[in-house]
Amino acid sequence: MIKITLPDGAVREYEKGTNALHIAKSISEGLAKKVLAANVNGEVWDATRPINADASLKLLTWDDADGKSTFWHSSAHLMAEAVESLFPGVKFWVGPAIDKGFYYDMDLGDRKMTEEDLATLEKKMNELARQNNAYQRIDKSKAEAVAYFADKGDEYKLDLLQNLEDGNITFYTQGNFTDLCRGPHIPATGSIKAIKLTSVAGAYWKGDEKNKQLTRIYGITFPQQKELDEYLAMLEEAKKRDHRKLGKELGIYTMDDHVGPGLILWMPNGTIIIEELEKLAKETEKDAGYHRVVTPHIAKESMYLTSGHLPYYADSMFPPMEMDGERYYLKAMNCPHHHKIFDAEQRSYKDLPYRIAEYGTCYRYEQSGELFGLMRVRCLHMNDAHIYCSKEQFAQEFKAVNDMYLKYFKIFGIEKYVMRLSLHDPEKLGQKYVNEPELWKETEELVRQVLIDTGVPFVEVKGEGAFYGPKIDVQIWSAIGREFTLATNQVDFAQSRSFKLSFANQNNQPEIPLIIHRAPLGTHERFIGFLLEHYAGKFPTWLAPLQVKILPISDKFMDYAHSILQTLKKADIRAQIDDRNEKIGKKIRDTELARVPYMLVIGEKEMNEGKASVRRQGKGDLGAIDVTKFVADIVEEIKERRSE
Amino acid sequence: MIKITLPDGAVREYEKGTNALHIAKSISEGLAKKVLAANVNGEVWDATRPINADASLKLLTWDDADGKSTFWHSSAHLMAEAVESLFPGVKFWVGPAIDKGFYYDMDLGDRKMTEEDLATLEKKMNELARQNNAYQRIDKSKAEAVAYFADKGDEYKLDLLQNLEDGNITFYTQGNFTDLCRGPHIPATGSIKAIKLTSVAGAYWKGDEKNKQLTRIYGITFPQQKELDEYLAMLEEAKKRDHRKLGKELGIYTMDDHVGPGLILWMPNGTIIIEELEKLAKETEKDAGYHRVVTPHIAKESMYLTSGHLPYYADSMFPPMEMDGERYYLKAMNCPHHHKIFDAEQRSYKDLPYRIAEYGTCYRYEQSGELFGLMRVRCLHMNDAHIYCSKEQFAQEFKAVNDMYLKYFKIFGIEKYVMRLSLHDPEKLGQKYVNEPELWKETEELVRQVLIDTGVPFVEVKGEGAFYGPKIDVQIWSAIGREFTLATNQVDFAQSRSFKLSFANQNNQPEIPLIIHRAPLGTHERFIGFLLEHYAGKFPTWLAPLQVKILPISDKFMDYAHSILQTLKKADIRAQIDDRNEKIGKKIRDTELARVPYMLVIGEKEMNEGKASVRRQGKGDLGAIDVTKFVADIVEEIKERRSE
Repeated sequence: MIKITLPDGAVREYEKGTNALHIAKSISEGLAKKVLAANVNGEVWDATRPINADASLKLLTWDDADGKSTFWHSSAHLMAEAVESLFPGVKFWVGPAIDKGFYYDMDLGDRKMTEEDLATLEKKMNELARQNNAYQRIDKSKAEAVAYFADKGDEYKLDLLQNLEDGNITFYTQGNFTDLCRGPHIPATGSIKAIKLTSVAGAYWKGDEKNKQLTRIYGITFPQQKELDEYLAMLEEAKKRDHRKLGKELGIYTMDDHVGPGLILWMPNGTIIIEELEKLAKETEKDAGYHRVVTPHIAKESMYLTSGHLPYYADSMFPPMEMDGERYYLKAMNCPHHHKIFDAEQRSYKDLPYRIAEYGTCYRYEQSGELFGLMRVRCLHMNDAHIYCSKEQFAQEFKAVNDMYLKYFKIFGIEKYVMRLSLHDPEKLGQKYVNEPELWKETEELVRQVLIDTGVPFVEVKGEGAFYGPKIDVQIWSAIGREFTLATNQVDFAQSRSFKLSFANQNNQPEIPLIIHRAPLGTHERFIGFLLEHYAGKFPTWLAPLQVKILPISDKFMDYAHSILQTLKKADIRAQIDDRNEKIGKKIRDTELARVPYMLVIGEKEMNEGKASVRRQGKGDLGAIDVTKFVADIVEEIKERRSE
Repeated sequence: MIKITLPDGAVREYEKGTNALHIAKSISEGLAKKVLAANVNGEVWDATRPINADASLKLLTWDDADGKSTFWHSSAHLMAEAVESLFPGVKFWVGPAIDKGFYYDMDLGDRKMTEEDLATLEKKMNELARQNNAYQRIDKSKAEAVAYFADKGDEYKLDLLQNLEDGNITFYTQGNFTDLCRGPHIPATGSIKAIKLTSVAGAYWKGDEKNKQLTRIYGITFPQQKELDEYLAMLEEAKKRDHRKLGKELGIYTMDDHVGPGLILWMPNGTIIIEELEKLAKETEKDAGYHRVVTPHIAKESMYLTSGHLPYYADSMFPPMEMDGERYYLKAMNCPHHHKIFDAEQRSYKDLPYRIAEYGTCYRYEQSGELFGLMRVRCLHMNDAHIYCSKEQFAQEFKAVNDMYLKYFKIFGIEKYVMRLSLHDPEKLGQKYVNEPELWKETEELVRQVLIDTGVPFVEVKGEGAFYGPKIDVQIWSAIGREFTLATNQVDFAQSRSFKLSFANQNNQPEIPLIIHRAPLGTHERFIGFLLEHYAGKFPTWLAPLQVKILPISDKFMDYAHSILQTLKKADIRAQIDDRNEKIGKKIRDTELARVPYMLVIGEKEMNEGKASVRRQGKGDLGAIDVTKFVADIVEEIKERRSE
């Protein structure tokens, strides 16, 4: 018998050679039906793979990220089986699970994959799924594996095999399809109930444009049809809310060939949103005791050699400018400049925590193929700040940063979020991680405790911390359920050392500060891109570039319209008059299209009574309201930054 | 007889061979005593040079820039005479008048010029000046001139002679000194009544560090001792107000070797001033109908080839970054990016005037030797905006810009200013100036009329306009009378053409807009540098980084101090408590040193009465004031941006 330790600490005994699926069945049949794979001693395994020794075990279902990716990778194999049955002679390269779904790269020879082919393939996949064929793992010697694919004439798998070691090679077979694969896979094809092949694209073999172009088919699958329907509806909605489409329609931003790719020109409407966000950040940070600073966008190479960004990060930086015999780089991050400000004056424990904030503009090199609207850009306006504090102050400071995130989530109606706490790996101290085992343990524990105390949902990931300390990636979901990476929070014990930063402690001895890097609103680019989707362009009043449009029914009411406009402007409300010679119906439609929160329709009756007929976007007609009251209400709404 | 036309249009007749001095005497003896030189047909001449044909003539005195520079250049010759009498064998290079005073570069062989030597030289110069020797102009043939300096063994003057043409060579002699010089000079040394040699420096021959280092002596002279005394007092005061000294003391800015020369790191206190200035600019520009935009700091080479900045302006730009087979440049100006925003949407006459503003950060290459504190930097935050308008709208727009300058001058207590209107030269149309003779005439006349209408002091300078239109340089004087160039205003008819900008006019035909470039607050760097000197670091309350310091007489009053602090913070006033365990006298002295506008001293009596003893910087004790009233008053003072 072997001992199996479950996540709750319970230990159960099973025959040697048992498997996760069997163990699940021993707990409940219902559970077993949902099992897709298992985490065995920290590795993801097939649920059917024999377990021959004591082990810790976590059953993985659709609710687990590893469960999903096993499901999708198995779906890639299912797709390959369908492709092979329809296109005999096809050769396959790799077919991984991705963030949402999977793809497989393949060489179809002279044949082309069409949209109709995708429909045929989907049908075939459904048929093969219903056969509920088991995914079978087979160990192979390297010689056997090479012989198999040489016989098949498959140069791609032979290429893969070159880099694999004998003893570590496995094949997986389901139905009539066999692939070189390290797994894991789900138990059988029957769990795949809903299938959508989403697109076909070209992809250079090994990503190198000098190589042959392969065909890449993207797809996604679900254990229930309902989930696929929801997913497709979300995609449809996301298309309508595409930030690039809305960004143009609403005059938020533009790009220009002569300026360059990934370099956003913020139009007047986008700039209003930027300024409102900065105002929010400045108010919030002022209340939280931050100082503001302004630093240049360039620095000498020596600065980035000190920070360690060069040479390691060079690929993500813009190329240098050579001047006066020095190399200057556009900054890809604000920290080194901020460290110089910390260091510009003698600091004592009385000055700490010293918090400096800047909406710093950074430049990062992204491959031009990776650029995407506001989401992947080369120029980033970052809601950046660095907090220099003592070890004793750390927990409180970190909690304050965390609270700031939560405050922002509330303001923007972000209901779903998760913090991903990346920790160090003790085995790689001194290599991948600064060799400060005690500091790692302490700060990780402090960070974890803050997350627990504030009740924030979080997951822990070992071995993904930054070089200089634990980090937290903040994931948020838009109103339609799409996931965005908002920002990264980092704890840093290394840069203070590299920059020789110190403060005089209470004993007047030099002490090295801890640094917290934080950017709760991320970058303007990514955050405004997110907000465009999140609000579908219908910004809450405080953020809306135009807050009120005054629609006179005819020219007779222009004077009254102007008097209202003046009142609104005096109250610092962004308002305009629609003075076109158009029917009121058209004026209303156009204003709705421009997503203006409030319309004030005015005619004879309104003018005589000092009122306006108010239409609230998304809520329709609110009736005739006293202008004074309307102004007081909207001022309050803006001041409180209400979401609706 | 020849006809002499005076500036008021009067024409007088004189014998052929008369001179300016003689003409002055014919008007008044008093005037003649003040004449230093004359403008004859647009050229500056010796007042004693014979006039042999009809001419227009303007007498030049100390009140004229050309009068001053003639005076100072003559003083350089006087200094050379003194040097030669004390250091026989000295060889001279060039000795021009400069902005304030003059210098002369010389080769002293192995000898060194000491501070004591300067005193001896001054004495000698005074002695020579009292001799009232005339400056005599003598025409020389090139052969004669070469023979003279060959005989003297003066390789420097021989070098100068190489580039001079026969028939254009003159010598000037006063007392025992003769120099190769094109003049002009003042009539005689006697006008030079007050002399100060200010410094000695090394200067490479022809500015090339591979050449021999010459000795450069700087000096300044005046027609009255009183003027020299005032000048030296102003210099002394300027030294106390040196923006580099105050900038460090008050925590305004810092620089760092690893960031690079000329790249300012704005510390928290400097950033507060920046943000107050930007707030002022944003409010003012919002009221004036400007839209705000945000643009990247880089663009492709092609953009600057279109704008014409490349290749002509390349020396003033940072070197390019090579990326993806393209060259990217840091922007040295914001206009091309703004043009792209204008061009991003279809514009019609209804959209004009279209005014876009940005505190754009530009990068300009200055020789490292030219860099100077905040005054000459490489990274500039510019109060920039561009106004796109039709010809009909131009005058009104230009007047609005002018009014904005005047508004700012008032806020900052700038009492002395002058606008220097640079015009085109009709003879150089199509070469130095865009070939649009009518547009030049029209806009120059419109600009001139606006300046006249608003009663702004201005001077006109022919042949100094920008390539693309007339420009106005704004000169301002600080409280201690030092002159600063604040900003440049430009009218532009060329860039719209290069960038193919247009709008649909009322007939729905494409029309090219005029562009006004304007930056009334100049750059943060230069303007804050100016303000530091102007206010001697004692910023008015609205600009002061710390507005109120609360000084409790002892710890007993800390709770009361904190309650006042909360009240102040709620009113958005920047306040702190001096909670050090120090005597009140020291607290007051330190706060005065930090140039905080208000101190609230609190003790038993103040606490019991809900008051504070208020000390206003520069005004002393204002007595015990009700805290509520104090807050109301200071809020009002800040809101109105009062200067004191």
